[in-house]
Amino acid sequence: MNSQSVFVQHVYLDAVGIIVGKLEKDGPLRRYFKNYIEDSYFGESTFELAQKKLSYQAIQIALRQSKYESEDIEIAIGGDLSNQIHASTSSVEKYSFPYIGVYAACASFVLSMILGSIYIDKQITVNALCFTSSHLGVSEKQFRYPNEYGIQKCDTNTTTLTGGVALILTKNRNKIKINSFTVGKVVDVLSKNVNDMGTCMAYAALDTFKTHLTNLNKNLDEYDQIITGDLSLYGSKIFIEEAKKMGYFLEQKHSDCGSLIYDITTQDVNAGGSGPTCCPVVTFSYFLDKMLKGEMKRILVIATGALHSQISYQQKQSIPCIAHAIELEVNYAY
Amino acid sequence: MNSQSVFVQHVYLDAVGIIVGKLEKDGPLRRYFKNYIEDSYFGESTFELAQKKLSYQAIQIALRQSKYESEDIEIAIGGDLSNQIHASTSSVEKYSFPYIGVYAACASFVLSMILGSIYIDKQITVNALCFTSSHLGVSEKQFRYPNEYGIQKCDTNTTTLTGGVALILTKNRNKIKINSFTVGKVVDVLSKNVNDMGTCMAYAALDTFKTHLTNLNKNLDEYDQIITGDLSLYGSKIFIEEAKKMGYFLEQKHSDCGSLIYDITTQDVNAGGSGPTCCPVVTFSYFLDKMLKGEMKRILVIATGALHSQISYQQKQSIPCIAHAIELEVNYAY
Repeated sequence: MNSQSVFVQHVYLDAVGIIVGKLEKDGPLRRYFKNYIEDSYFGESTFELAQKKLSYQAIQIALRQSKYESEDIEIAIGGDLSNQIHASTSSVEKYSFPYIGVYAACASFVLSMILGSIYIDKQITVNALCFTSSHLGVSEKQFRYPNEYGIQKCDTNTTTLTGGVALILTKNRNKIKINSFTVGKVVDVLSKNVNDMGTCMAYAALDTFKTHLTNLNKNLDEYDQIITGDLSLYGSKIFIEEAKKMGYFLEQKHSDCGSLIYDITTQDVNAGGSGPTCCPVVTFSYFLDKMLKGEMKRILVIATGALHSQISYQQKQSIPCIAHAIELEVNYAY
Repeated sequence: MNSQSVFVQHVYLDAVGIIVGKLEKDGPLRRYFKNYIEDSYFGESTFELAQKKLSYQAIQIALRQSKYESEDIEIAIGGDLSNQIHASTSSVEKYSFPYIGVYAACASFVLSMILGSIYIDKQITVNALCFTSSHLGVSEKQFRYPNEYGIQKCDTNTTTLTGGVALILTKNRNKIKINSFTVGKVVDVLSKNVNDMGTCMAYAALDTFKTHLTNLNKNLDEYDQIITGDLSLYGSKIFIEEAKKMGYFLEQKHSDCGSLIYDITTQDVNAGGSGPTCCPVVTFSYFLDKMLKGEMKRILVIATGALHSQISYQQKQSIPCIAHAIELEVNYAY
């Protein structure tokens, strides 16, 4: 089923908007984050309204970086972890772009980039806005317990990023090009442990990783880095070990966004970062910088999502997972 | 922004799978429903597991109707009202198709058809599986109160369908053709009344209706029927009145799926049907039959969604709405 993986010809990165919370601004990638909030309420009365504002602000920043006005945006594609992806939807209600809502948990942003790439590459539009947001206070309350309850975390728990990301794709030639993508399958290894999502998502990442390379007849040597978001320390180990069994030696070539965003030795984040903003925040700050400086020329970004709900957990269902992949490369012809 | 509306050249309806609950089987469209369940638990221990099974069964029925085996399906696109669209995701975990999760509330199915049409028309795949499900017990519990609580409904409340729908689109010529589509914008008329979603969704339906006709330079005369799903009696009235102000006289040309699925004089359903299955269940049974018999040759289906969440309601936010439209026509050349 090669149509699962698709080569893209005419899709480029036009602009990036990133805004993060204090924990992210205090982390090792601090120098990449010009836009951040000190107060997790962001001047609003609830965490949910703060998340909506983060999403809105990220879109505003991306629009300012781009040559587009909001009325020029031809399609907007977004999704996030909040029930009914309400943070995404409500953040665009003041804009007039056509809107497609997607859900792939923490892989939602890469899924929005895949659909945006199809829209542009197939000449339906000349641009596409992809966006997401997440908020630690919203996610903890919705999926687990309110932070105020003070429950002790497991070592395998990850910390949802507080932030918003928006990115504008365009058909106009630019420095960074979307090269190809793979839409993932649902992979369920029958784990029920919602306190260790990295472990079960690792198998979805493996499936998409192998599928991408096989379908597109690609070799690991072509990539400077295979980037997952977010397998945590635990899932990353499984990903590397299982990939080795498949004949892919990833030790020097793999990074996990959730392991880069925080300093896990000094910040109280347990197994690292997660949430739909984690993978794009790290990719479009740290890795984008390396690409623009010529230190990396091609990366494969595999975003993973744990597709359970609070109800499915309460009813003791296993956690279906998915991973969607997108390949970025430096366009030397530009 | 004409790219919001797109003409489609090579997308046909291959197969339909519909399964409904007892209330739907007892309604005026009963003769169209071969597959139905008497017990709303469908042999499962929870309503959520019943909904997952309805989705799975609808896909099975569609596959049996088609010439495809499940491993031939190149892309599956689904979404539903349940938090994290878990019913959709978990219903495909046993299949191996690549999966795109979407969310547009009760417009999710038409959104999945739009993306499926793009996949096929732009020659990424030769087929696409679109699917959704809904369950009265799941929706009431999630958005409002468990049915067992016995709260009194408002006259303006609609009744979520219990059922599953799956449809296979294909590039192979067939009797029913997808002709065009319009991706909707988020429209928020600042209503906060979640007990009358038809009223606020009517304005999203109007926006998409007018956009579709204007962008594609179409005349109301071209259509046998403008079908909304689901504006209820209240929203339908607004839709017709406001369309008249725009110069479109819809009295004889408009049907609302939520008003057709039940007999509101004899069934205890308040303002009619709703839920992501309502629009496709009615369209691909009652209206499809009329098209196949030659009684209708072209219809415009405008599916509407109220994009609030339980939390956004509790925090007194207004209800953002959306409507996505798809046009179907009889392919006389077949």
